[in-house]
Amino acid sequence: MSTLGFIEYEKASPEVRAVYDDIMATRKTDKVTNFWKALAHDPVRLKRTWEDTKQIMGAGALDPMVKELIYVAVSVTNQCDYCIAAHTVSARKKGMTDQIFKELMSVIGLANENNRLVAGYQVEIDEQYKAEG
Amino acid sequence: MSTLGFIEYEKASPEVRAVYDDIMATRKTDKVTNFWKALAHDPVRLKRTWEDTKQIMGAGALDPMVKELIYVAVSVTNQCDYCIAAHTVSARKKGMTDQIFKELMSVIGLANENNRLVAGYQVEIDEQYKAEG
Amino acid sequence: MSTLGFIEYEKASPEVRAVYDDIMATRKTDKVTNFWKALAHDPVRLKRTWEDTKQIMGAGALDPMVKELIYVAVSVTNQCDYCIAAHTVSARKKGMTDQIFKELMSVIGLANENNRLVAGYQVEIDEQYKAEG
Amino acid sequence: MSTLGFIEYEKASPEVRAVYDDIMATRKTDKVTNFWKALAHDPVRLKRTWEDTKQIMGAGALDPMVKELIYVAVSVTNQCDYCIAAHTVSARKKGMTDQIFKELMSVIGLANENNRLVAGYQVEIDEQYKAEG
Amino acid sequence: MSTLGFIEYEKASPEVRAVYDDIMATRKTDKVTNFWKALAHDPVRLKRTWEDTKQIMGAGALDPMVKELIYVAVSVTNQCDYCIAAHTVSARKKGMTDQIFKELMSVIGLANENNRLVAGYQVEIDEQYKAEG
Amino acid sequence: MSTLGFIEYEKASPEVRAVYDDIMATRKTDKVTNFWKALAHDPVRLKRTWEDTKQIMGAGALDPMVKELIYVAVSVTNQCDYCIAAHTVSARKKGMTDQIFKELMSVIGLANENNRLVAGYQVEIDEQYKAEG
Repeated sequence: MSTLGFIEYEKASPEVRAVYDDIMATRKTDKVTNFWKALAHDPVRLKRTWEDTKQIMGAGALDPMVKELIYVAVSVTNQCDYCIAAHTVSARKKGMTDQIFKELMSVIGLANENNRLVAGYQVEIDEQYKAEG
Repeated sequence: MSTLGFIEYEKASPEVRAVYDDIMATRKTDKVTNFWKALAHDPVRLKRTWEDTKQIMGAGALDPMVKELIYVAVSVTNQCDYCIAAHTVSARKKGMTDQIFKELMSVIGLANENNRLVAGYQVEIDEQYKAEG
Repeated sequence: MSTLGFIEYEKASPEVRAVYDDIMATRKTDKVTNFWKALAHDPVRLKRTWEDTKQIMGAGALDPMVKELIYVAVSVTNQCDYCIAAHTVSARKKGMTDQIFKELMSVIGLANENNRLVAGYQVEIDEQYKAEG
Repeated sequence: MSTLGFIEYEKASPEVRAVYDDIMATRKTDKVTNFWKALAHDPVRLKRTWEDTKQIMGAGALDPMVKELIYVAVSVTNQCDYCIAAHTVSARKKGMTDQIFKELMSVIGLANENNRLVAGYQVEIDEQYKAEG
Repeated sequence: MSTLGFIEYEKASPEVRAVYDDIMATRKTDKVTNFWKALAHDPVRLKRTWEDTKQIMGAGALDPMVKELIYVAVSVTNQCDYCIAAHTVSARKKGMTDQIFKELMSVIGLANENNRLVAGYQVEIDEQYKAEG
Repeated sequence: MSTLGFIEYEKASPEVRAVYDDIMATRKTDKVTNFWKALAHDPVRLKRTWEDTKQIMGAGALDPMVKELIYVAVSVTNQCDYCIAAHTVSARKKGMTDQIFKELMSVIGLANENNRLVAGYQVEIDEQYKAEG
């Protein structure tokens, strides 16, 4: 069970319900997932986290599916099982095909491998990278 | 200095030179970066890593710039300074604008934050995520 | 099941029992948790780890609850589910309220986010930090 | 150099200056550190991150020094050199003595060690932890 | 359930079967583990990953058991439960005794602790290490 | 500069000098490295860490070079530059050849890659691994 338990809609305060309503409306679903129901114990944090998530993950110069792929890449690298499960589903809803998923996995695997090779071989940063920033 | 030092083109064996040549041709540059010059001490690994990199980071269902963004997301999450520097430059060459960079950073920051909130609140995976895979 | 299985009190050697007895006396409980029962296969390590834990987590310039909060912060950042569960319980026993827990989570989330923004933006250390150490 | 460079006060837009002014006033200093000058390329993010930081790191149920200790614990676990340097200085300003610093380090070291022992010995979560949450 | 599900032998394409056959022959077993059955959705990746694994984990200057110990050390540090379980079993098959396992755990614990102490105390690299590479 | 600075032999207390003497005698060198000179601010911790290190890294069922390889594997995975530099030198002194180093790097790279593929594909642990522990 989650540390503080989950706050269900029926038991939620009006300010928490307002966030839940916005989550469901934005995501076109009638379910609020566990992450939000755990955060709801801290209504200020719930509101900030939801607003950040909504703004950051929404359409911009990058399309929402690509943002989900980046989110999955971070979650995989951090070994966060919940986040991998949740955002793999989100990515699919926003257009991730099986082929894209497999390419995503390959890039994540490669980057994790090369990150360590760089560290292990103690490779210094090339002058050109310093210059180009 | 890198653990085994760098192998410069002039001192490289023919099989290492062949990889260097392919790197420079593929990247349209006349420089081989330090990562490859460190790996060159292990020619089999150099060849495999380069071939993997070339194949995985090339165009597919995802365009090469998006792959670089994913690579940067992993490298930031792993705190690999070399990799961040190198692939930020690569991403730019493949079309990353300042606006895209800033959105990338926001998603990486948000995912890292939420990954930990999920862990700290000990949130269980929703049934719906298990079902949808 | 744990790799080597657990060593229960009844089957434990005298030296392992001595550690178990001290754990139960120190913690005012009649249960030894799984972590210690797994380590008991290596009695030298069990003793050292317990003595380190007892000394380090005990009262000092920092009070024991604050030490548990720091322990939880590390465990969340490492995604160690067992450690999060165990030390969240310990923190509560030592005085962590729901409000403190929520503030702890917020700080952990913020630090993880900002750590990555610093890495991603490739921010150099300010001269003043170098000077002040 | 930071990826996008730093935005100095003189070159900053009014909205960025407003954040800089608040940072300097809150921290009772006449310097804005590099982290903020890098984020300033994304004024919305700058403002959100500063407001989050100000709110989260301010006095609450936990005193600000303890929050800095937690922040350092996360930064050390993530190997973020910049963040360690910056928040060690902040912790000192808020009352961290050498003795507290040393206890902080011991707890961080212990937690990192034990997190891995738990993983390596594949220790399952005790029933009591599941029950107590 | 795994994201894309598992591809069983009976449903596998000839190229996937060829890899499965080689895995079973090399490992002298009649079972293919879940990792490979998940990767099989991407036959090119399956083949590359298996060939890399077979070549890298096979006998060389290091004996295969030592390679498994190193693999476990990485997996523990990354908190990958699946990988810890799988490679602990592999290490045993290649000769890891209980005593070796316990020493492995102690080194992993120590390194993780000391890695963080170095970061937290902000220890600079000794000149002699720079010189010796 | 290290957070608390370094304690040189001439300025060290007798108990710190005793540890320094043992380090130099054990390692057959006339230099104490920075890590120990930083820890010396906390003489109890210095003594414990040195005794743990001496005992854990010494000969046992595993030979000391193999223990250094495992230490490097952890340090690379944690991106601890100091630790990578120091223990690569130690490993060499204990017999690591260039060939062993290269195989070590390949295993570290592979494990880091596969750890993430397992997470990303959400692979469940095989029943056989659960049974065999």
